[in-house]
Amino acid sequence: MSEQHAITMTAPPEVYRQRRAKLAAALERPVVIFAGHAPARNYPANTHHFRAGSSYRYFGGPPLENAALLIEPGSDGDAGCTLLRRPPGADDALWFGEVPTDNDIAAAAGLRREGLADTDKLEALLAGRAAATVAPPFPDTLAWIAKLGLPPANDDELRAIINLRLTKDEHELAAMRRSSGICIEAHRAAMAATKPGKREADVAAAFMAVLHRHECQVAFNPIITVHGEVLHGQGHPNIMPDGALLLCDAGVEEPGGYACDFTRTFPVSGKWTPIQRHLYEITLRAANEATAACVPAARYRDVHDLSARVICEGLVEAELLRGDPAELVARTAHALFYPHGVGHLVGLDAHDMEDFGDLAGYAPGRARRPEFGNKYLRLDRDLEPGMCVTIEPGIYLVPAIWASDELVKPLADVVNRPKVDALLKDSFGGIRIEHTICVRPAETGGPEILSETLPTDPDEVAACVGTG
Amino acid sequence: MSEQHAITMTAPPEVYRQRRAKLAAALERPVVIFAGHAPARNYPANTHHFRAGSSYRYFGGPPLENAALLIEPGSDGDAGCTLLRRPPGADDALWFGEVPTDNDIAAAAGLRREGLADTDKLEALLAGRAAATVAPPFPDTLAWIAKLGLPPANDDELRAIINLRLTKDEHELAAMRRSSGICIEAHRAAMAATKPGKREADVAAAFMAVLHRHECQVAFNPIITVHGEVLHGQGHPNIMPDGALLLCDAGVEEPGGYACDFTRTFPVSGKWTPIQRHLYEITLRAANEATAACVPAARYRDVHDLSARVICEGLVEAELLRGDPAELVARTAHALFYPHGVGHLVGLDAHDMEDFGDLAGYAPGRARRPEFGNKYLRLDRDLEPGMCVTIEPGIYLVPAIWASDELVKPLADVVNRPKVDALLKDSFGGIRIEHTICVRPAETGGPEILSETLPTDPDEVAACVGTG
Repeated sequence: MSEQHAITMTAPPEVYRQRRAKLAAALERPVVIFAGHAPARNYPANTHHFRAGSSYRYFGGPPLENAALLIEPGSDGDAGCTLLRRPPGADDALWFGEVPTDNDIAAAAGLRREGLADTDKLEALLAGRAAATVAPPFPDTLAWIAKLGLPPANDDELRAIINLRLTKDEHELAAMRRSSGICIEAHRAAMAATKPGKREADVAAAFMAVLHRHECQVAFNPIITVHGEVLHGQGHPNIMPDGALLLCDAGVEEPGGYACDFTRTFPVSGKWTPIQRHLYEITLRAANEATAACVPAARYRDVHDLSARVICEGLVEAELLRGDPAELVARTAHALFYPHGVGHLVGLDAHDMEDFGDLAGYAPGRARRPEFGNKYLRLDRDLEPGMCVTIEPGIYLVPAIWASDELVKPLADVVNRPKVDALLKDSFGGIRIEHTICVRPAETGGPEILSETLPTDPDEVAACVGTG
Repeated sequence: MSEQHAITMTAPPEVYRQRRAKLAAALERPVVIFAGHAPARNYPANTHHFRAGSSYRYFGGPPLENAALLIEPGSDGDAGCTLLRRPPGADDALWFGEVPTDNDIAAAAGLRREGLADTDKLEALLAGRAAATVAPPFPDTLAWIAKLGLPPANDDELRAIINLRLTKDEHELAAMRRSSGICIEAHRAAMAATKPGKREADVAAAFMAVLHRHECQVAFNPIITVHGEVLHGQGHPNIMPDGALLLCDAGVEEPGGYACDFTRTFPVSGKWTPIQRHLYEITLRAANEATAACVPAARYRDVHDLSARVICEGLVEAELLRGDPAELVARTAHALFYPHGVGHLVGLDAHDMEDFGDLAGYAPGRARRPEFGNKYLRLDRDLEPGMCVTIEPGIYLVPAIWASDELVKPLADVVNRPKVDALLKDSFGGIRIEHTICVRPAETGGPEILSETLPTDPDEVAACVGTG
């Protein structure tokens, strides 16, 4: 078998067996976890990159399209576990070369050779028993499940998976450090490629070239824009004017599937204007204080509120808001400038387990607050050692917000509207700083910041710009 | 509206109206042509690039997710045509910034403002009438159609679309020249980045950086490999050894959706071995003769057979086969070395209209031949001016073929097996040269070769390698 066909896994077989055994101990019925398949681009044979489902990967599934893991209640992680996969087609060797052998596949997954079965056998293996299903949102997979008549996993079953995936073991952290290292290299390349008059697409190309060299995927479509106020901007069409800020929110997924998610904002010219630097320093203070607050047992919602308070303190200093910062946060005045949550879980997904909805992000009994701004917070759990989260406060001048009487009128008494309008007129854009961190026991000196060596100091950041 | 939100179209509105009117004239019932949506990567909000369906784009649909064009029989292309789209959500301005206005959308599509409707209105607009559907293979789109209970277009309706899309007008050709220009730049970058000891991924990064700079997508996942004998190789994991050939089969899709598809093969070191050069020159001769044969009224299957004959002539010269070349082709001996078809349609899809199956590639009354090799030919039509096709012969040493008694035994009398085995042992790999061409009337001097300025001469090719 040439290196071309190596199976990329992130943990040794024994670890996958242990994970499956732990899940099996919590199950009352079998669960089938699907890999999914590569979705079509325009016609069926022309597909996007195949990205196996995250839960399937977590429990040891090798990256094989249309495969599935069947885990029986009480399994020891080997016996009672079956990897279902479609056997190679007659012409596969011609079109795709050598494919992994059954022995390779079983070894990677931590299963005996007898633990492999053809997907067609799933129905026979279940023999009419109810089985829960977990699947990525891919069409043929969902159609297959519908045809089998199997129900989706219930909340208890999903929680059993979530409880395992919520804290990262040493193998997962090693993978996240790998994606982070490549992400830092890519962000540095992006900074180096930034110059007035060049295009956002030039910066995106510099970022992406690093990923391609390392055979990595994007963890999500990178946001690389002089319109940082557009929170989920798409495409990179703009020329970067002198005087603008470039916001670069881009993460890497290493071949095992583990993500990181970093944001840096910097002046296109390498020179901060006073107000840019001032609002940047406020954002940095919020990022640093929120990061330091991520200790075991801290409630993530409190970390969000802390970041909002630091932002409000800064906005009062900057004379954009007036009043007592704590009171401003209570009235969600921060959301006029900082309308999103402070971060989210990160792991095998950039928004880890977001396919399970708030079941993953919100601890039992907790729910999203209804107010504008706070309602976008994706996570409210008590932090535990090994949890990986992002910390990503920001300050933006969003025209759509300032055009909304509904949002602005109730806070008119605390807003310095002329100064806001001047920044809007000046196309200030937006600033965000984002770390991916791993929560650590307090005695080990606070969280591990996976983005630590990517500069945040405004002078250091500026020195990286335009050097390429 | 900032440049960020410009709607990319490839033809003026009047041309889209004309295309719709022509289709409408061939219809007996309304047809709904769907745009599709961006498929999920791992969780629903994390999507791959949105690529609107090709037929939807051809008939003037702007790139809007979950939109659709309703075309009534006998429509003049404006009245009797409706663009259905989902109106922006309440929070869209916050997350996605300014979105195109209804006036922008209608103008781009060549419709009156009243020609726009909410997707929810599709059922009411049809008012119980049967309507045919054409959709890209995307899950939510197919689920939407299933819910509406609408049938897929029948063969007559698909043929009406195929007949229009089969020959390219000046706007389409201009778009294909744009994608080709970028593809040439990217292939040159790939050649320049190739050096012994570097990785295939380094070459892929150089290729992809050019696409990212131009905000283009891949037309398909690029094949960049020292294992050219793996016809649809995936990933770029290998180190490129001195002495190996690198096969680079990679195409560009410009923002309007038009593709090109070029292949070049070159020595990693920039120096051909005698046998590499010999088999390369045979392949080049086949590519050139097959290209020259692409004149109006020529049958594409004959072009394939011509390429097979030139390959056989060369393989006899090279003492890999023995016998009369025409007889060798009749026995499909070429397929031992050249197991695929000479090419395919290219346009809005890299394999244009492959989602319609052989209805697009094969003229009425024609079907695929059953023999190994010839059965993979994707196209058998009489060529017409404006048709765009690839010409991509190759010579490969595929271990899976030579391990197959079924394929080799019947041809044992014409094969020089020791010489074949020596090349296999030497990991010869494979060679392919691919042009994207546009068929022209004979009096204008033969086909337009969109890849013309990307070198094919072995010395010129070698001189491009490793210069970056």
